[in-house]
Amino acid sequence: MPSFIKFKSIKATNITVLGEAKFESPIGHSISDRLLIPENIVIDPASTAKEELVFELAGPRSAQFFDPKHTRAGIVTCGGLCPGLNNVIRSLFLELHYAYGVKEVLGFRGGYQGLDPVKGKEPVVLTPEFVNKIHKEGGTVLGTSRGPVDIRIAVDNLIKREVNIIFTLGGDGTQRGGNELFQEAKKRGYPLAVVGVPKTIDNDVAFVTRTFGYLTAVAEASKVLSNAHNEALSVENGIALVKLMGRNAGFVAAGATVASQDVNFALLPEVPFKLEGPNGFLAALKELIITRSHAVIVVAEGAGQDLFTADKLKQDDSGNIKAKDIGLFLRDCIEKYFKSENIPVVMRYIDPSYIVRSSAANSEDAILCDMFARNALHAAMAGKTGLVIGYMHDRFIHVPIELLTSRKKSMEPDSFQWKSVLSSTGQVAQFE
Amino acid sequence: MPSFIKFKSIKATNITVLGEAKFESPIGHSISDRLLIPENIVIDPASTAKEELVFELAGPRSAQFFDPKHTRAGIVTCGGLCPGLNNVIRSLFLELHYAYGVKEVLGFRGGYQGLDPVKGKEPVVLTPEFVNKIHKEGGTVLGTSRGPVDIRIAVDNLIKREVNIIFTLGGDGTQRGGNELFQEAKKRGYPLAVVGVPKTIDNDVAFVTRTFGYLTAVAEASKVLSNAHNEALSVENGIALVKLMGRNAGFVAAGATVASQDVNFALLPEVPFKLEGPNGFLAALKELIITRSHAVIVVAEGAGQDLFTADKLKQDDSGNIKAKDIGLFLRDCIEKYFKSENIPVVMRYIDPSYIVRSSAANSEDAILCDMFARNALHAAMAGKTGLVIGYMHDRFIHVPIELLTSRKKSMEPDSFQWKSVLSSTGQVAQFE
Amino acid sequence: MPSFIKFKSIKATNITVLGEAKFESPIGHSISDRLLIPENIVIDPASTAKEELVFELAGPRSAQFFDPKHTRAGIVTCGGLCPGLNNVIRSLFLELHYAYGVKEVLGFRGGYQGLDPVKGKEPVVLTPEFVNKIHKEGGTVLGTSRGPVDIRIAVDNLIKREVNIIFTLGGDGTQRGGNELFQEAKKRGYPLAVVGVPKTIDNDVAFVTRTFGYLTAVAEASKVLSNAHNEALSVENGIALVKLMGRNAGFVAAGATVASQDVNFALLPEVPFKLEGPNGFLAALKELIITRSHAVIVVAEGAGQDLFTADKLKQDDSGNIKAKDIGLFLRDCIEKYFKSENIPVVMRYIDPSYIVRSSAANSEDAILCDMFARNALHAAMAGKTGLVIGYMHDRFIHVPIELLTSRKKSMEPDSFQWKSVLSSTGQVAQFE
Amino acid sequence: MPSFIKFKSIKATNITVLGEAKFESPIGHSISDRLLIPENIVIDPASTAKEELVFELAGPRSAQFFDPKHTRAGIVTCGGLCPGLNNVIRSLFLELHYAYGVKEVLGFRGGYQGLDPVKGKEPVVLTPEFVNKIHKEGGTVLGTSRGPVDIRIAVDNLIKREVNIIFTLGGDGTQRGGNELFQEAKKRGYPLAVVGVPKTIDNDVAFVTRTFGYLTAVAEASKVLSNAHNEALSVENGIALVKLMGRNAGFVAAGATVASQDVNFALLPEVPFKLEGPNGFLAALKELIITRSHAVIVVAEGAGQDLFTADKLKQDDSGNIKAKDIGLFLRDCIEKYFKSENIPVVMRYIDPSYIVRSSAANSEDAILCDMFARNALHAAMAGKTGLVIGYMHDRFIHVPIELLTSRKKSMEPDSFQWKSVLSSTGQVAQFE
Repeated sequence: MPSFIKFKSIKATNITVLGEAKFESPIGHSISDRLLIPENIVIDPASTAKEELVFELAGPRSAQFFDPKHTRAGIVTCGGLCPGLNNVIRSLFLELHYAYGVKEVLGFRGGYQGLDPVKGKEPVVLTPEFVNKIHKEGGTVLGTSRGPVDIRIAVDNLIKREVNIIFTLGGDGTQRGGNELFQEAKKRGYPLAVVGVPKTIDNDVAFVTRTFGYLTAVAEASKVLSNAHNEALSVENGIALVKLMGRNAGFVAAGATVASQDVNFALLPEVPFKLEGPNGFLAALKELIITRSHAVIVVAEGAGQDLFTADKLKQDDSGNIKAKDIGLFLRDCIEKYFKSENIPVVMRYIDPSYIVRSSAANSEDAILCDMFARNALHAAMAGKTGLVIGYMHDRFIHVPIELLTSRKKSMEPDSFQWKSVLSSTGQVAQFE
Repeated sequence: MPSFIKFKSIKATNITVLGEAKFESPIGHSISDRLLIPENIVIDPASTAKEELVFELAGPRSAQFFDPKHTRAGIVTCGGLCPGLNNVIRSLFLELHYAYGVKEVLGFRGGYQGLDPVKGKEPVVLTPEFVNKIHKEGGTVLGTSRGPVDIRIAVDNLIKREVNIIFTLGGDGTQRGGNELFQEAKKRGYPLAVVGVPKTIDNDVAFVTRTFGYLTAVAEASKVLSNAHNEALSVENGIALVKLMGRNAGFVAAGATVASQDVNFALLPEVPFKLEGPNGFLAALKELIITRSHAVIVVAEGAGQDLFTADKLKQDDSGNIKAKDIGLFLRDCIEKYFKSENIPVVMRYIDPSYIVRSSAANSEDAILCDMFARNALHAAMAGKTGLVIGYMHDRFIHVPIELLTSRKKSMEPDSFQWKSVLSSTGQVAQFE
Repeated sequence: MPSFIKFKSIKATNITVLGEAKFESPIGHSISDRLLIPENIVIDPASTAKEELVFELAGPRSAQFFDPKHTRAGIVTCGGLCPGLNNVIRSLFLELHYAYGVKEVLGFRGGYQGLDPVKGKEPVVLTPEFVNKIHKEGGTVLGTSRGPVDIRIAVDNLIKREVNIIFTLGGDGTQRGGNELFQEAKKRGYPLAVVGVPKTIDNDVAFVTRTFGYLTAVAEASKVLSNAHNEALSVENGIALVKLMGRNAGFVAAGATVASQDVNFALLPEVPFKLEGPNGFLAALKELIITRSHAVIVVAEGAGQDLFTADKLKQDDSGNIKAKDIGLFLRDCIEKYFKSENIPVVMRYIDPSYIVRSSAANSEDAILCDMFARNALHAAMAGKTGLVIGYMHDRFIHVPIELLTSRKKSMEPDSFQWKSVLSSTGQVAQFE
Repeated sequence: MPSFIKFKSIKATNITVLGEAKFESPIGHSISDRLLIPENIVIDPASTAKEELVFELAGPRSAQFFDPKHTRAGIVTCGGLCPGLNNVIRSLFLELHYAYGVKEVLGFRGGYQGLDPVKGKEPVVLTPEFVNKIHKEGGTVLGTSRGPVDIRIAVDNLIKREVNIIFTLGGDGTQRGGNELFQEAKKRGYPLAVVGVPKTIDNDVAFVTRTFGYLTAVAEASKVLSNAHNEALSVENGIALVKLMGRNAGFVAAGATVASQDVNFALLPEVPFKLEGPNGFLAALKELIITRSHAVIVVAEGAGQDLFTADKLKQDDSGNIKAKDIGLFLRDCIEKYFKSENIPVVMRYIDPSYIVRSSAANSEDAILCDMFARNALHAAMAGKTGLVIGYMHDRFIHVPIELLTSRKKSMEPDSFQWKSVLSSTGQVAQFE
C-alpha cells in the first residue's frame, strides 16, 4: 500500500459572484471559499492521474454581498410535485427572515408563469404565520406549473419589484431557466442572485447523491410494494405489477425494491431487457410462477422504451403502445403470454405515482430540505449566482447551473445499488 | 311523551340447530338463546304496529353440541381481499384451540376450490406458530379465489376428512355456498355446522352495521384523498378524481369523504346523477373550478352505471365505456367538457383499490375481527348451522344465511351518512 | 320463541326547550322529536317488565328556535387533551357558518376560564381560514385548562357578548358547569342554549358507547404495545409493563389489548386483583416467565387502587406509593418479587399517555367527531338546552346533562369486552 | 484557485487477512483491495500537508478465502435494541445462503452469552422460512443481552461447532469482544473471520456517518416531538420536556429537532449549559414562556452531566439527582424555578426511549441494513477479519476494530448539524 497520494490536477468549477461582499454576516460561523471537494474521492494507486472537478463547499460566508435591510428575496416552485417543497419554502423564509433579517420574501405563484405580471397571480408576501405548519403537508403552497416564462418579462418584473434574490426549486428545465434569468439580469447590469435547489423525485441529478423527496418516495413506494405482495401471495399465480416513477433513472424503483424486499423483478431504464426468448423476462416470470406461484414486478416508467419500435407502433393499434406506457404495455404482454402458455394468472396492476409524490416529506427528507434551503440562501446572501446547491460525499456544495444541467445521473449497472437490487430480487443481471 | 311502548308483534329468525347440546361449555360465561334483538329499535308513538324481525344474540352458550376432543374445524376464505382476513383466521384458531380445545383446525386453501380434493391444494393444519404474527399482515394466509365448488364433492371431502365445522369468510356468493354445504350435509345426515363471517370491503351486507375491513379501507382511502387534495391544490385548476370501492353501496367513498374533509364531490351508486345540463355535475364542477380553482372528486365504482346506455355503448368505441368503468369514463368526460369550455385544467386520476384492500387491519378492525371470529365459533360449537354472524345496534347476532343473502344494505339518501357527506363536501343533494 | 314483545313502561328523559321553534330550518331534512330510543334493546321474554329510559333521537329539527341572522355561538374546550377536539371545533363552525348561516362563532380560549373576561384571553372569531386544516392536528386550537369559572361572571359575559349558544367540549365536570350556565341564564331570563359534547379518552361516559378520541387512543396504544412486545421478546425474561389511561374504566387498556394481541396480562380498575399468594398476579407472572420467558403487562392508571392501603402508605416512604401511581408501584413490586425469587428479569416500564392523547384523530374518530358536532348544533338551533349528545346502539341521542353526569360507564366483568381481553391474553378471570 | 492538489502522505488502515483467497467468487462483480477512501476529503489549499487515514472500499472481492461448501457462519446480536437488527440478520442469511451457498448459518441467541454452550441456549439454524418476514418487525429474533462472554469458552465452542465466520452486531463493547475472539482464534491457529456491523441508535461511532437504526429513531422521535408540541400549545404556559437517547452524542435529539421543527430548546451532551444566571437556560425559558406562552424542550440523556456535582449529590436526597437522570432532574428544576418566579406552568415530561428503539426499521434504514450486511459478508468470505464495516462519504469501508473502538464520534459545536439545530430552534449557541 502506498504512503502518498499521486499528484492530481484539478479543474475548478467557478461560481459567478455579483460583486464584493462588504457586509458582515449575522451568522455566527462561516466557511471559506477556498475549501474544495473533489468529485472523485476514491484513490486508486494503479490509475493514471487525470484532471478532476472540484467544488466549493456550501455554507455561510463571513461576509455578504447583500445588505439584508435592503434585500428582497423571491421563491418559485416549478414542475411536478415532490415531497418536501413546503419544507424548503419554509426554511428559506425562516432563515431569511430571522437569521438574516431581510426586508421581504415573496412567494411567486404557480411556477415560472408567476414571474409574469400579466399571466401569473400576484405573489404572496411570506410571513411566519403563513409558513407555520406547511412543512407537515405535501404539495406546494406556492403552486406550481410546467413550462417557461418569457425571460425578459420576468426580469423586468423582478427589477420592478426590487427582488434581489430568487430561489428556483425545480428540475433541469427550471434550473436552465434560472440561468437565463441571471444572464438576462447581468446584461441589464442588475445584480440578481439566482440560486437553484434541485428538485426531482427521480433522484437523477448529477452532483446530488440524494435529491429531496426521493427518500419519501422510496418509503411510500415500499408500502405499496408490501401491499402488492399481499395481493400476489393471496391468490394462485398472482402477479402484481407496480409502475413507479423514474424516466431516465430507476432509483425510486431500486430503493423501494431493496427497502421492501418484496420484489421478484425490477425493470429499470438503465438496464435494457428482452421480453421474448429463453432468456427473456417472460420466460423467467413463467419459471417463477410455476415454482412459487406468485410474483411481484416493479417497472420504472422509463424502462423498456426500446420495446416501442417503429414496427410495433405501426402494427399495433393499442393505446398503451402508442402512449409508450411501459406499465400498461407490460401488463398486456404478460396477460397475453400466460394465455398463450395456457397458465391462468391473476393480474394486479398498480400505478401509485400521484399518491407517492404528493406525500408530506418524511423526517429524513425534512432534514435534507432544511439543509438544502439554508445552504441556498447562504450562497445567495454572499452574492453568488447562477448556481445550484449540490450534495456529494455527504456534503453540500456549489455547482454552476450550466455544469449541473449538462449531465444526468443514472444507476450504473455495476453500482452497489443495482447489485443490491439483484440480491434483493434474486433476478438475473440481464434478460437477453 | 307516552309512558309505554305499544304492543309489537315480532317475527323470529330461526336458526337451525344440529341437535341437542349435551356437552358442557368450557367458556366461563354464557348467553341465553332467549335473548333477542329487534331489527328496529326506534320507538315512534305515532306509527302503527307492524311485525318486526328479531335476532338471537351471539355469544357462548352454556351447553355445546360438539365434543371438542372429537371435533375438527375448517376455515375457508373466498373472494377479493379485505383487511382483517388473517385476524379472523387467527382468532378462530386460537379460541378453538385454547378455549375449546378442539382436536384440529384445517385451513382450506385458495377459496372454495380448496374444498375439492382434486382441484385444490392440501389444506394446512393450523398451529399457534403458523398464526402467530399473521394478524399484522394484509391478504389471507390461506389464499383465496372467486368461484364456486361442486357442493357434493366438497361435502364428500368434508365427511372424509371428518370436518364437523366449517367457517366461511366471504361475501354473498360465499355465504350462499355455505348454505348449500349445510343443506347437502343435512341431506346426507351428516351434522355439519356452517357458520359464515360476512366479508365485504363495501360494507353492503344487511344486518351488519360494519363489516370487518371497512374501517381500514376508509382510513387508507382517506390518506389517498388527502394526497389527492395536495395534487389538486398545487396547480391551477387542478382536478383530482379518485375511484374507490363500492359496487352497490358507496360506504367507503362516503366514509373517506367525511373522514378526510378534503372532498368537493362524492358520487355514489345510491344517488343517480346527471352530467349535462345546468344542474348537472359538470356545470357544478365548472362553477367550483372558476371560483376555487381546484376540485377533489370521489366516485364509487358502482356509481353512474345508468350513464352507460345502450346508445352510448353503440356510438362510442372507447374501451372505458365498454368496460363500464365509471372512473375512466368520468375522467374522459371531464377532460372533454373543459376542453369544450376552453378552460385549461390539470387532471389527476387515481385508482387505489388494490392498495387499500390489501392493507393490514387497523386497530378498530382488529377488534371487530376478533369478536366476529369468537362469536362465530361459539355458535358453531353450540351446534348452530346455516347462519352468519351479524352486527346490529352494536351487538353481535345470529342471522340465517338465507335471510342475510336476500337483502342488500345501501346508503339511504336521507340517512345521516349521506347528510354528513353533503355537509362535508358542500355539494347539492342531487345533480339532475 | 314468542311472537310479541311484552308491554314495557318507559320513562322519558325530558330535554328542556328554550321556547317555540318558529323559524324554518335551512337543513333539507329533519327528525321528529317523537322518535325515541330505549336504553335497553335486548328483549328477554323471561324477564318481568320494568320501567326503562328512552331518549330523543338527535338530528336536525324541521323548525328552529334561533334566527341564524341574529345568532352568535361560542365553543369552549376543557380538561385534558383528547384526539378529535379540533375536528369537533371545525365541524361545529362549518355547519353553523355554511349550513345555518349564523352571524358569528366565537372560540373561547383556555377552557372555562376563557369565559371570564378578566382572567381569560379575548375569544377568537372563527373563520373558514382559521379552521381550514386544524382537523389534521392533535391538541386544541382554542386551548384548554382544568377548573371551573365563576358561573355568574361567565353568564354576564355571554349576555354582554350576545352569545346565544355555547358548546361545551369536556368531561363530567365541564358538563356540570354547562348545566349551571344554563340554569343561571334561565334564572336571568336569558335564552341560552348549552349543548355538551362528551369528551373523555377513557370512554367512561354513560349513554355514550364510544366517546370521540377513544379509538385513536386504542390505535396509538396498540402501536406502543407492539413495540413493548418487541422489547420483552428480545431479551431473556423480558417484562414490558405499559401504563395506559383509564381512571375508572379500563376501556383503552382493554381495546389496545384485543387490537394488538400482544398482551399477556391486562389489569383494569373494574377487576380488583391480588399481588401475593398462589393465585395472585405475581405468581401467575412468574409461571409465565418460567414457561415463556417474556411477558407484556398492561395496567390502567386506575387499577389496583385498593393496594394503596393506609397501612402501606404509612410503612413505606416510596414516592410511588404516596403518589398512588399504580404503574411505578407495580414496576417496583415486580422487580422486588423476582429478586426475592432469584429470577433475573429485564424490566421495561413505558408510560405513553402524553403521546397518545395528543395525537390527531384517526379516520374513524374523524367521522365520529363530525357527527357529534353536527348533532350538537342541530339540537342547539332547535332551542334545546341543558343536554349532551349521547351515542347509543349506533345512534346519536339527546341526554339531559343531569342524567349523564349522575352515572359512570365501566366495563362489566361479564361483558364481551372483558371476555375478549381474557381470550386475547389467556389470563385467568381474576387474581385472588 | 489552484490547479493541483498538494502532495499528501497517507496512512493505511491495514485489515488482517486469514490467508490466500484461492476460491473464485460466485458474485458477478468485484472491488479491488487497492481502492482507498481518505478520511478527509476537503481540500484546503491553504493548509499544510499532514498524514491522513485511508480505508479499503468494502464490497465483493474477486477471490475468496472460504470455500462455501465447507463454510459455516454465525450471527450474534448484543446490547440494547435498535431498529434494523432483524434486517441485518435477514440480509446476512439470504446472501450467505443464496449468493454464496454456504453450508449453514447459525443464529447465536441472547447476545454474547449465546456463544457459551453452558450459559446460552442452543443456537438456531437459520432458514429462508425463519427469516422470511422478520425485517418488518422491531427487536431481534435472536435475542440480545448485555455483558461479555469468556472468550476462551466462546472460541472453544466456535471451533467445536466448526463455525468459520462470525458476524457481531453491537456497540463498542461488542466489537472489542469480537476483536478478542479473533485474537484468541488466531492464537489457536483457527482461521476465524470476525466481522462487525456497528450498532448504536446514538449514531456515535467513528468512521460511520449513519449507523443503522438512527434514521428510524429520528423519525419516531419526531412524531413524539410533534405530539409534545400539541401538549405544550394547548395549555397556557405549557412546557413539554422530552428526553431522547444519546449518551455521548446528541445526534438523535438534533435530528428530531431539525426534522420536526417543533422544538424551542435542544440540550445535548456536546454543548454544556448553565441553568442559573441571566444567560442560563432557565432565564431563556422564562423569556419564551412570557412571550410565547409555550415551550418544547428536548434533552439528550447524556446532556448536562456536569450539573450532577459532588456537592449537589451530597446536599440533595432526590432520587433523580442520585440516578443522574437529566430528564427528571431538569423537570424538577424547571418546576421549582417557575414556582419561585411565581409563574404557573403546565409541565409534561415524556420519555419515549423504549418505544423508539423497538420500532421496525423505516425504509431508509432497511436499505442501509441491507448494504451493511452484504458488505460485511463480502469481507468475511474474502478472509478478512478483525474489522467492522464503516460508512463514510456515502461509501462502505473496512475499518480495523481497534481503530474504530479507539475513537468516538460526537457533534462538533461548529458542525452544520448543530447549526441546523440552532436555526430550527432559534436558541442561543450556549447558555452560560
